Order: sequence, then structure tokens, then C-alpha cells
Amino acid sequence: MVTRKEVADLAGVSEATVSRVFNGLGPMKPTTKERVLQAAKQLNYHPNAIAQSFARRRSGNLGVVLPYMPKVHLFSTYYFAEILSGIGEQVREQGYDMLLTLLTPEDSADYIRLFRSQKVDACVILGSRDTPGQRESLQRLQEEKLPFCLVNQHFAGMELSEVDADHVQGSCMAVRHLQEAGYRRIAFLNGSPEYSNSMDRLKGYCQAMNDAGLEVSPQLLFEGNYSRKSGYEAAAKLWEQRDEVEAVFAANDRMAIGLMQGLRERGWTAGRDLAVVGCDDSDAAKLSDPPLTSVSVPFYEMGKAAARRVLGQVLDGESGKSFQVKLPTQLIVRQSSLRNHE
Amino acid sequence: MVTRKEVADLAGVSEATVSRVFNGLGPMKPTTKERVLQAAKQLNYHPNAIAQSFARRRSGNLGVVLPYMPKVHLFSTYYFAEILSGIGEQVREQGYDMLLTLLTPEDSADYIRLFRSQKVDACVILGSRDTPGQRESLQRLQEEKLPFCLVNQHFAGMELSEVDADHVQGSCMAVRHLQEAGYRRIAFLNGSPEYSNSMDRLKGYCQAMNDAGLEVSPQLLFEGNYSRKSGYEAAAKLWEQRDEVEAVFAANDRMAIGLMQGLRERGWTAGRDLAVVGCDDSDAAKLSDPPLTSVSVPFYEMGKAAARRVLGQVLDGESGKSFQVKLPTQLIVRQSSLRNHE
Repeated sequence: MVTRKEVADLAGVSEATVSRVFNGLGPMKPTTKERVLQAAKQLNYHPNAIAQSFARRRSGNLGVVLPYMPKVHLFSTYYFAEILSGIGEQVREQGYDMLLTLLTPEDSADYIRLFRSQKVDACVILGSRDTPGQRESLQRLQEEKLPFCLVNQHFAGMELSEVDADHVQGSCMAVRHLQEAGYRRIAFLNGSPEYSNSMDRLKGYCQAMNDAGLEVSPQLLFEGNYSRKSGYEAAAKLWEQRDEVEAVFAANDRMAIGLMQGLRERGWTAGRDLAVVGCDDSDAAKLSDPPLTSVSVPFYEMGKAAARRVLGQVLDGESGKSFQVKLPTQLIVRQSSLRNHE
Repeated sequence: MVTRKEVADLAGVSEATVSRVFNGLGPMKPTTKERVLQAAKQLNYHPNAIAQSFARRRSGNLGVVLPYMPKVHLFSTYYFAEILSGIGEQVREQGYDMLLTLLTPEDSADYIRLFRSQKVDACVILGSRDTPGQRESLQRLQEEKLPFCLVNQHFAGMELSEVDADHVQGSCMAVRHLQEAGYRRIAFLNGSPEYSNSMDRLKGYCQAMNDAGLEVSPQLLFEGNYSRKSGYEAAAKLWEQRDEVEAVFAANDRMAIGLMQGLRERGWTAGRDLAVVGCDDSDAAKLSDPPLTSVSVPFYEMGKAAARRVLGQVLDGESGKSFQVKLPTQLIVRQSSLRNHE
């Protein structure tokens, strides 16, 4: 490869002058600059971009932190895929690349190292859990005024930058829809309480039940881990108290579909023997049998907004201020929640 | 942030000595080294990793080049999501990060800049098309002996590193399965011929037809663009010659599902009025109605193998040799291809 020295020799200037031209630094005679650019062109010289960004202190990368889960095909989950698609669209618009880092919960104290290593100018954190270690890591990022943003996640009592969806409203809508269809004994299959959006959905469920004068009895509350399998397993538990349940709202589509599969094996079909509503409005909701009523969450738009906001902070040089964005959700009604559609 | 100068002052050495310690360069008195490390620890100093990798000429990033398609939720397509999941698993194992770059066909001559910029040590290229510009870019990468690998793509006449699936064999299996079920007039709905795997599938289709003594007539050949919509549109064309077609093999599941939806609107159900086989064995194949018989392609394993091979070349320092890997496919039989299952 052509070196800086060769360009300097051909242009009759010092190596430092060549650097100054390519890094846009300091005052410079236009004729000198022109001579360097000519020499560079003639020799097909490409300045080293890492050295350039070192000078400018910019990497041109937006970091995206994802939770590492062995054997899980992470990019194939609707949730992450949609958020990443939104981020990808936005970084492309701004001329950035995405640097993806997969971290286990134990690694997560390393957020700050991502910045220290100057691999990224800003970062978006996905799928973080509410643990003391996590809170401490995020607190430090904020104290150092490093531009970062959470998506679909917030930490009670902390004012972190975040782009979220209104899961309380979404769950409320789902439960009200079931009430309007005439159901009273509505169960809730939630995901892990370590995620803030699980807690938000529980809040929305309780609110809608209370507003309708219905009791939230513990036997109506089920818990899975957002996997199809955990929904399938919940079907066995629900079956034991099938006389007490008329409808189920599940905190994501995968669990709802697993639940419908488990119940079908026992002879119950959603939309006939009970009503089921999911959450996410993923592709699977449209393809399941029966098609699944679901709360549509704008994950793509959330990813796009998060990238736009943090990169905006980098480019405006004001990364100290935290921001909170909350996008609305929407209920998409299909056959799984209709009474006796078959 | 703590600077190199502060560490140098506290340790009573020059800034260059601090750099030499952190970059592991040159001879050094052990006591001097110890003094610098102590000072760095005391001040909580973290050397700049870009400067370090500049010294070592390693970025710690595997580049992944993806095709940019406006409005397409790229990560949500089964194909890219699975390959990326495999790559992600492997980079994590090797302590690497992934640098994702979205390029339009016009950008693609920029592959070499990815390396020149020292943002990546190696790169995996996905979804490239067989165009003269593309061939030229890849040729240059190879001439400069930069470690890269294609996935699910090959260029006739070029010996590029690639990890592919045996699409000829997969298509052959699909068509033979239909023949064994008694179908003779088997149509083929292909994707764009600019992708090598489209051509491979056509080869497999023709081979199985010829082996069975069946003619490949032009009116049995349909073309879409791998989207569900293009499959849906193909249904209209197929409907016009419905007396001539008993079964369809589609080059991916999305088109197969679109086709089934379009035919259903006209009163034809797959698995009853005609047989349909897809390709990819995506989640959608399991969820469609009826469930779709499909050729399972090990995209996840292909992504993992590609990352392992190119990073192996970086770590072994032998990036000149190209390699070709071809993984087998498998036919998963479901109701869409069975005769009169309803």
C-alpha cells in the first residue's frame, strides 16, 4: 500500500502536512493542499480512516448492544429484527455503520469500554434487564455524559434516554377489547418481570380489569419467558383451571401461539372455546391458525427514532441531556379473540 | 478522561514510554513498565483502543456487508436473520464484534474501502448480485488478498471464498417429492436470475424433470422477486393456465405463501387442489395454512461457517487461499404437498 511518506515526497511537503490535509486540520496554503491531493490521486493513496477518526475522535459507528443468549437465533426474533431494521435504516441515512456487540448479563458492565475503545460514537442498548449491575453500568454511562439510548426499556427512578412504546395503553386496549366481546374471566400470561415492558403490561391489564370492576385474582396470572415453548407449557397450567378462564391476554405473540397450540392438543380452539390476544403483531400473528388478535408495537420506528436521537446528540455535540420518547400502540383484531367465530 | 500525559507525569516517564507499554512495543526495563502500569491503574487510565489496534493493525471487527433496500425490514427476513445469527454466534466465540454496513448496488465498489479504513479485519458479503461492477469489486478484494467470504452466492468462473448450500440437490429433492406423489405438470416459481442460488434451483428443477422424462416447457416457468407479494401476483398468472399445472415448486417460502394466498382467493387450496413446495423452511412454513412443505437450508450454520473460516484466515495470517464450502439441504414434508389431504 502507498504510504503517507511517498505522498509527502512526491508533493514535496512533510508527512505532517499530508496528515493535516486529510484530517482537515489547521491553516494551509491552497496551493499546498492542491499539491498533496494531486500526489495522493496520482499514487492512489487512501489515508487510513482509523488514524483519521483518531484525529477527529469519531469512529463513524453506532454501537448496538444485544443480549447474548446461547443457541437463540437472536436476529430471527421479530422483536430484535424489527428494531435492528429501524436502526439500520437510520444509520444508513446518516452515513454511519452499525457495530454490533453481543453481551451476556455478566459482560454488561463493559458498556463504558465500548466508548473508551472509541469503537463507537454513541450506542443503543437492547434487551437489558433490571438488575443492580445493569443499573450501575447505565448510571456510569450517564455520569460520563456518553450518548446512549435504551429501546423498549426503562428503569424506574432513573432518567435515562429511552425510546419506548406505550405498553400500558396497549395492554389496556387488549383487555378492554376482550371485555367488550363479553369476557369477564380474563387471564394474563406475562413474560419475565425483569423487563420493564412486562411490568407495564401488567399495569395495563390491572387497570383495564379494575376499570371494569373485575377482580385481578392471582389464579388469573401466569408467567412465561416470552418463548413459544413457555406459552405451550402455560397451556397445561391453564387447562387445570379451565372452568375459571374465558380469555387470555399474552405478553407476546410467541407465547400466545404456544398457548393456542397447547390448548388445541387438549381440544380447545382459540376463537371458539376461548379468546386469545397476543402482543407484537409479528408475522406469526397473521399466519397462525386462527390468525391472532394482537397489540401492534412500532418496533421498527422505535429503532429508527433511537438511532436518530443518539446520533443527533453526537453531531450536535450535546450528549448530556436525556430524552424520553413514547410511541403509541394499536390493536389489530383477528379471529383468535372473536366469540365463536368457527 | 485521563490522558496519556497525566500517566506519563505521574510515572515520571515520557508519553512515548506510556504508549510503548500499552502497545507492547520495544524493549523496556521491567521497573519502568511496572511504574507506568501502577500510574495507569491509580488514575483509572484506559488506553485508546483504536490507537492500539492501529499499532497492531487489527480492529477486532468482522465486517458484514448487507444489501440496502429502502423500506425493506432487512433483519426481519428469515434469510438474513438466520445468517446473521450464525455469524453473531461465531464472532462472539472469537471475541470479535460485527460491523454491519448496508450498501446499495452502486456502493458496492466500496468493499475495499472497508478494509482500507481498517474498520474490519475480514468481511462476509451477503446478498450480492451477479453484475459486472460486483465482479470487479470482488476481483480486486481477491487480488489484494483481503480475507472475505460470500454466503449463499457464487460467481461462475471465479474462485472466490464462499459458503453455500447445495441448492441444486435441494430443488431436485423437492421436484422428485412431487413426482413421487404422482404429479407430472410441475411449475417452478423462481426468484431473480441475478442471484446464483436462483440459477442453481432452476438447474435442480430441470434435472429432476429431465430425469423423470418430463418436459420443461416455458409455460411452467414463472418468475418473482422472492417477496410474498410477487408470489401473490404469480397466482394470477398461474390461474390463467390452471388446467396445465398440478403442482408448484417455489424458490422461497414467502413466494410460496403468497401464491397459496392468491390461489385461495380463487377457491384453490394447496394440498387439495394443487401441491405447493417452498424453499427455506422458515418459521412461516410451519405457521402457514396449510403448513408448507419446504427445502430446509442451513442458513445459520452457513453464517457460522463463513465467520469461522474468514476469521481463521486473519488469525492464521493466511488470507490468500480461497475456500469453497457447500452444505446439504433437506426436504421437510408438510400438508401443502400432499394429495388431497383435506
